[in-house]
Amino acid sequence: MRKKEIRVALIGHKFMGVAHSNAFRNLSMWMNLPVKVSMKCVCGEDSEENLSIFAERFGWESWDPDWRRVVQRNDIDLVSIATPNFLHKEIAIEAARNGKLIICEKPLSNNLSEAREMLDAVERADIRHCCGYTYRFTPSLALARQLVAEGRIGRIYNVFVRYAQDWISDPNFAMVWRFDKKIAGSGPLGDLSAHSIDATRFVTGLHFKEVSGNLQTLIKERPLDSAKPSGSKGSVTVDDVAQFLVNFEEGATGCFESTRLATGRKNYNTIEVNGEKGSIFWNFEEQNSLLFYDNQRSPKESGFAKINVTHDMHPYNGGWWPQGHGIGYADSFVIEFGLFIKSILENAAFNPDFRDGMECQKVLEAIEKSSVTRTWINLSQI
Amino acid sequence: MRKKEIRVALIGHKFMGVAHSNAFRNLSMWMNLPVKVSMKCVCGEDSEENLSIFAERFGWESWDPDWRRVVQRNDIDLVSIATPNFLHKEIAIEAARNGKLIICEKPLSNNLSEAREMLDAVERADIRHCCGYTYRFTPSLALARQLVAEGRIGRIYNVFVRYAQDWISDPNFAMVWRFDKKIAGSGPLGDLSAHSIDATRFVTGLHFKEVSGNLQTLIKERPLDSAKPSGSKGSVTVDDVAQFLVNFEEGATGCFESTRLATGRKNYNTIEVNGEKGSIFWNFEEQNSLLFYDNQRSPKESGFAKINVTHDMHPYNGGWWPQGHGIGYADSFVIEFGLFIKSILENAAFNPDFRDGMECQKVLEAIEKSSVTRTWINLSQI
Amino acid sequence: MRKKEIRVALIGHKFMGVAHSNAFRNLSMWMNLPVKVSMKCVCGEDSEENLSIFAERFGWESWDPDWRRVVQRNDIDLVSIATPNFLHKEIAIEAARNGKLIICEKPLSNNLSEAREMLDAVERADIRHCCGYTYRFTPSLALARQLVAEGRIGRIYNVFVRYAQDWISDPNFAMVWRFDKKIAGSGPLGDLSAHSIDATRFVTGLHFKEVSGNLQTLIKERPLDSAKPSGSKGSVTVDDVAQFLVNFEEGATGCFESTRLATGRKNYNTIEVNGEKGSIFWNFEEQNSLLFYDNQRSPKESGFAKINVTHDMHPYNGGWWPQGHGIGYADSFVIEFGLFIKSILENAAFNPDFRDGMECQKVLEAIEKSSVTRTWINLSQI
Amino acid sequence: MRKKEIRVALIGHKFMGVAHSNAFRNLSMWMNLPVKVSMKCVCGEDSEENLSIFAERFGWESWDPDWRRVVQRNDIDLVSIATPNFLHKEIAIEAARNGKLIICEKPLSNNLSEAREMLDAVERADIRHCCGYTYRFTPSLALARQLVAEGRIGRIYNVFVRYAQDWISDPNFAMVWRFDKKIAGSGPLGDLSAHSIDATRFVTGLHFKEVSGNLQTLIKERPLDSAKPSGSKGSVTVDDVAQFLVNFEEGATGCFESTRLATGRKNYNTIEVNGEKGSIFWNFEEQNSLLFYDNQRSPKESGFAKINVTHDMHPYNGGWWPQGHGIGYADSFVIEFGLFIKSILENAAFNPDFRDGMECQKVLEAIEKSSVTRTWINLSQI
Repeated sequence: MRKKEIRVALIGHKFMGVAHSNAFRNLSMWMNLPVKVSMKCVCGEDSEENLSIFAERFGWESWDPDWRRVVQRNDIDLVSIATPNFLHKEIAIEAARNGKLIICEKPLSNNLSEAREMLDAVERADIRHCCGYTYRFTPSLALARQLVAEGRIGRIYNVFVRYAQDWISDPNFAMVWRFDKKIAGSGPLGDLSAHSIDATRFVTGLHFKEVSGNLQTLIKERPLDSAKPSGSKGSVTVDDVAQFLVNFEEGATGCFESTRLATGRKNYNTIEVNGEKGSIFWNFEEQNSLLFYDNQRSPKESGFAKINVTHDMHPYNGGWWPQGHGIGYADSFVIEFGLFIKSILENAAFNPDFRDGMECQKVLEAIEKSSVTRTWINLSQI
Repeated sequence: MRKKEIRVALIGHKFMGVAHSNAFRNLSMWMNLPVKVSMKCVCGEDSEENLSIFAERFGWESWDPDWRRVVQRNDIDLVSIATPNFLHKEIAIEAARNGKLIICEKPLSNNLSEAREMLDAVERADIRHCCGYTYRFTPSLALARQLVAEGRIGRIYNVFVRYAQDWISDPNFAMVWRFDKKIAGSGPLGDLSAHSIDATRFVTGLHFKEVSGNLQTLIKERPLDSAKPSGSKGSVTVDDVAQFLVNFEEGATGCFESTRLATGRKNYNTIEVNGEKGSIFWNFEEQNSLLFYDNQRSPKESGFAKINVTHDMHPYNGGWWPQGHGIGYADSFVIEFGLFIKSILENAAFNPDFRDGMECQKVLEAIEKSSVTRTWINLSQI
Repeated sequence: MRKKEIRVALIGHKFMGVAHSNAFRNLSMWMNLPVKVSMKCVCGEDSEENLSIFAERFGWESWDPDWRRVVQRNDIDLVSIATPNFLHKEIAIEAARNGKLIICEKPLSNNLSEAREMLDAVERADIRHCCGYTYRFTPSLALARQLVAEGRIGRIYNVFVRYAQDWISDPNFAMVWRFDKKIAGSGPLGDLSAHSIDATRFVTGLHFKEVSGNLQTLIKERPLDSAKPSGSKGSVTVDDVAQFLVNFEEGATGCFESTRLATGRKNYNTIEVNGEKGSIFWNFEEQNSLLFYDNQRSPKESGFAKINVTHDMHPYNGGWWPQGHGIGYADSFVIEFGLFIKSILENAAFNPDFRDGMECQKVLEAIEKSSVTRTWINLSQI
Repeated sequence: MRKKEIRVALIGHKFMGVAHSNAFRNLSMWMNLPVKVSMKCVCGEDSEENLSIFAERFGWESWDPDWRRVVQRNDIDLVSIATPNFLHKEIAIEAARNGKLIICEKPLSNNLSEAREMLDAVERADIRHCCGYTYRFTPSLALARQLVAEGRIGRIYNVFVRYAQDWISDPNFAMVWRFDKKIAGSGPLGDLSAHSIDATRFVTGLHFKEVSGNLQTLIKERPLDSAKPSGSKGSVTVDDVAQFLVNFEEGATGCFESTRLATGRKNYNTIEVNGEKGSIFWNFEEQNSLLFYDNQRSPKESGFAKINVTHDMHPYNGGWWPQGHGIGYADSFVIEFGLFIKSILENAAFNPDFRDGMECQKVLEAIEKSSVTRTWINLSQI
C-alpha cells in the first residue's frame, strides 16, 4: 500500500527558498512521517535556466516562473511562500482560494490590514496554515516556554529582549532595496523585532497591552555603490534601530531593541525572562543551550545553569543526534515543517499560524504609530 | 619634616559608611599620596556605644552623634557624606559653608532642585567636591571610556544598558522604608539607573536629548513582617522596575532598564556600546574584565575579546596587584578617594563632581516626568 | 550531456550510518559538485524489513544484508564504511581489492597492525581513501589550523586537550558490548582520544615523540541489566578514563585526557594551543566559535576573542548560511564528503586519509603500551 | 579592660610582604576579632630608608633589617614569613625555637627534607602554624570543598587541574634569579603546581598514590638583558612547564599542568572535579563564582550553574560585602589570617598548617623524581 502523499510547491528561491528546500528534502529522514512529502515544483522570478539549476540542486521535480499557474495545479497540496514580504498577501490569498495548505514566511505581511485579509482568506477557505516563526522550533527556546508553562518561572516580572546584528554598521554599505520603505516596509522592526515579539508571546504567553516605540534611522544616506563611498547617495527611509517599552496585560514590563548596527553581534537574538520563581536567558548565537536560574533551590547552590538542550527529554528530543551533538540554524525548519504536516494528519492544533502572524503585526503597527505620535499606544486602539 | 595632613570626618556608618572607612584606611598603602590622611571622626545616628565600636573597628580616632558639630570643627578638612540620600543636601551645604572639601555619595540628592542648590553651595564656597559615582574607578569601565576616547569605537550608534538585581523578587520580602517614596525618593531609578546614566555619560560622552520613561511598581503591597506573609501589608510607593528609551544629541539611541526583580541577577550592572569601529560590553559581575570587539580587524579574526583588565597599562594600573590578580568591589573607593585627594593637591580637574551629580539628576527628573505624562520629555524642558 | 556519476554504497546503518546517509543526501544542495552522487545501496546486519525501512527513510535506492556482495558490484564507485571498528579492516581491504573509493570511519581499526594492512591495501590498489576524522571539517577547528599555519600562534609551547563525556558516569549504566575489550578494542582511548590526537596533528602539525599513558577502569563492574542494579554484574575490560602526557619532536608538551565519566560534560571535545605569538581554544560544545588570543596586539586590548566562525572568509565559508546562522554536528560530514569527492575529481591531495588514520593508531598503541609498562614510550619504538 | 593583643612581625617586604601587610591592616575591620592585632615590626633585606618608607606606608610601627633579632624579641607573638622560599626553613625554625606563632608562605620549603625539619621544629616547640595556601580562603573554592563534603559530588572519578600563566611566554623575557634552580628551587612546579596540589587535597580530600611527571624547560636560554635580545644569554635551569598524571588511593585519576607559557592566561588557576553525583569547575580568574553541575536533578534542567559566591550562606559569608559585590585577590589573605588567629584563640584546629605544606612537598618531590626516572613514582617511596 502506498503512503499518502503531500505534494509541495515552493514560491521563492533566495535565502528562505533555500531554507525551505533543505527542510523539505530532510523531512523524511528526521521526522519519520507516515506520509510521503514530494517536492513537486519551485517558482521564482528568474530565468528558466536558473530555476532549473535550482530545482536540480535542491531536488525539485519541476520549476515554473509563474506562481499563479502553480497554485492552481491539482497535483499541489501545499504551497510554501518564501518570497519578499510584499508578495505574501497575494500569493497566500490565491493559494487559499485554491484550497491549498499554506506555509508563509514571517512577517506575515507588510502591515496589519494585509495580515487581517490573509487570516480572513485562510479561515474562509478552511485550510491549515503556518506562519514561519521558525525560532519556536529551536529546542532551547521551546524549553524556555516549557519551563514557564510548568510554573518554574512563576509570575513574570520583566522581559528583556534584544535582537542585534551588525551587517550594515559600515556607513558605506550601499543603498539597497531593503532600505527603501516602499519595498521593504520597515527595517529591523519587521525583520528582527517581529521575531522578538513572537518569541515573547511563545515563551511567556503574556499579552501586549501598550507600547512606547522609538524608530530611528541613524545612517540617513548611503552610497548607491559601496565601492564609491563618496559618490551619489540615496536616502534610507526605513529604521536601522527599533526600540520599544511594553506594559503587558498581566502586570509585567518589557524592554525591546532590535538593530542592524550592533557591531560584533552577528545574530544575537536574545530573550531574558525574570519571574518570581526563576529566570531564563536564551541567545540564538548559542542555540544549543539555555540558561535557567531556579530560585527555589537554596541560594547556596543557585546560579544560571547552562543547559545543553540536546537530551531526548528536551522539546523535539533536543534535536536529531545523541546528546551533546548540537543542531544548526537550518534544522529548525525541518522540525517546523514536520510538525505542521503532522498536525494536519492528526487534525491537531498548530502554532504559529496566520493568527499568530496577525497578532505580531498588531504590535508592530502599534510601535510604528507610537513612534510617530511619540506617546504610548494601547493595543486596543489598533 | 611632617607630611601635610588631610583630616577626614565621615557622616554615616552603614553600608556606605563602611565602604568609605575601608577606603580611607587603605589609602596610604595603595595610593602613595604625598599627604597623610587622618581618620578623625565618624558621625552617625546611633548610640555612643555603637559609634565607639564602629570607630575602633574601622580606625576612626573619635566619634560624635552630632554631624553639625563635626562639620564645624577646625581640625576637619574633608567631609565624606554616606548617609541616606534625603540628608545629603543639608549636610553638604553646611559643610560647604564651613569650607570643607566634600565627598558625597550618589545620587547627589532626591531631586533636581536639591542638586542645584548643592552645586550652587559648593561653587559659591569655592571648595572641591566629589560625587560618589564609584564605578568610574573600576579599571575595566575606565578602559571602556579610554577606548571610546581614543576613537576605537568610532561614531556611537546604540547604547544598551541594564542594571539588574533580585533582592526583592520575593513578594514576601517585607515592606521597609526603602519602599516609601517619601523617605527613599525612588526605587531602582535613583538607586540603579543613576549609576547607568553616569556610566553612559562617563564612557561615551554622549548628551541625553530626550527620554521616554516607564516606572512601574509590579509588587504593589508587601507584608509588614516577612515572617507573616499573610499578615498586615503596606503599600509600595516607589518603582521596582525603571525603563527608559533615549535619543542622544549626537544621533545615537539608548535603551535602559533597572530592576530589583531580575531573579538570578545579583549586581548585574552592565553597559553595551555599539559604534562604527567597535563595541564594548561591561558587566560589573565580572568587574576585572571588559569585552571589546574591534571592527577594524579582519572579520576572520574578529570577536569580542575578553580583556583581563589587570595590566599596568590599564587605567589605574589595572588595580594594585600583579596581572591576573583581580580587585574587588570595595577597592574602587580607594582609587576614587585617592584620585580626588591627588586632584586637590595638584589643583587639577576631578570628575565626577557635583555638576556630574546634578546632570544625572536632570535625566532622572525627565524620566520621572515622562513616566507621568506618558510622552517623550526633552531635557531642555527640565 | 549527463553529469558524471559517483555511485555510493554504505555499510553500516546505526549512528554513523545515519550521519553518512544524511551527508550523501545533502551533498548536492551544499557542495554544488560537478558530479551526481547516487545513493545506490545500504548494507547492514539486520532484517530485510528493517533495511528497507532505513533505505526508504534515508533515500537509498536499494539494500542488501551482504556487504561482500555489494563491494563487488560494478555499479558501485565508492564504499562508505560505518560499521563497528572491528569490521573496518576486512571491508576496506575487500573494497580496495575491488578498486572502490573508500571512506572509512575512525578509528581506522582496532590496532596498529590492522591499520598498516589497510593502508597497504589502499596504496597497492591505488585508490583514493578518506579516514573519517570529521571534526577537521568544522569551520572553527579549521580556522584554528589556519591561524597556526599563518604563523599567528608562533612557536607552540603547550597543547592541552580534553575530550569529556558523561554518558556512563552512573555506575548502574548497564554492561554493554562497548565495555568488552574483545569487541570494542578500547574505551575512550579509541573513541575520544583518537579525535584529540587527530585534532592536534591537524591544528598544530606537531609530531608526537614520546608518551606516558594512564588507562584506568574506575568502574570495574556493571549490572547486566540497568533496571536491576543489584543483580548480576559483568566485568568492564576497557578503560573509562584515558590520560597521557606528550613530548613532541618540535619541543612542545601536551597533556591529554578523555573520559566518559565527566558528569555534566556532554560532548566536551576541546583543544587549547599556547604559542609564543598567540593562543587558541576550541570547544565543540560551542562549535560555531573559536577563541583566539593575539599576543601581538597591545596588552591593553588583548583578550581571548570569541570569533563567530560563520563568515564567508572563514574555512568552508564558515558553513552554509549567512553570517551568524551556525551549523550543527551533522553538517561537517557533508563538507567532508564533498571535499573528498572534489579532491577525486580534481586529482588533488586529501586529508585525513588512511595514513592519517594509521599515524593516529600509532600514538594510541604507544599509549596502551606505556600504560602497561608504566614508562615513557618513544613513538620510534612502535 | 584592654583587649588581648597579638603582636606581629613580618619578614619580607616584596609582593607577599605587601599582601601580608594589607591583610594585617584590614583584619580588625573585617574579622571582628576579640583581640587586637598590632603590626609591630617589618624586616627585609633592604636599606633602612626603604624599610622605613615601607613601614610608614603599610602601617608597621617599626622596621629592622635583621630578622634574627626580631624573632627573638619578647614583644613579638607571631612571625609572618614572606621571604623567598629558600629562607623559609631557617626563619621558621628560629621562630619556633623562640615560641612564636608562625605564618609561612607556600611552598613551605624548597624540598621535602627541609619541610620535614620545619614540621618537626614547630611540633617540638608546640606552637601554632599556618602554611599560606591562601586560595583555600577564597569563598568559591571553599564552596567547592563544602559541596564535596556534603556528598553533592559523590564518588570522585576525575580531577582535571590547570594553573596557567603567561608572563614568560616571550623568549626575550630576561634571565632572572627565578630561572636559576639553585636559588628558585623549581619553576611552575613549586610556584603553581603546589597550589594545584593543595587545592586538590583541600577540595576533594583525595590521597595521592602515584604520579608520572614531566618537567620541561622549553625556552632553554634567555638574554641577560631583555633590551638586548641578541646579547649574552643565560641558561634556564628550572622547568617552565610542569605536567603530571595521578592515581589517587581512592580510585580516581588526575591530570595536572602548570605553565608560565600559556599566552593569554593571566592567573588561570583552575580545578575541575567530576563525580558520580555532580561536578564542579573553579577558575580563579573569575574568583567570585563557582560552576556546579548537579546530576541529581532531571537532565531536562541540568547544566553547569554559575553560582555567584557572595551570599551570607556561602563560606566566609561569601566575602565582606552585600551579595553581588565581589572580593579581590588580596582579600583572601585577610580571611586566612583572621581564621588562623581565631583558631588560636579558640584552641581549635586550623588548616593549612605545616603538615599540609609538607604533604604537598611530598607530591612535588615525587613528581621531580618521576620526571628524572621517567617512571611512575609511588608516594610511599618518598
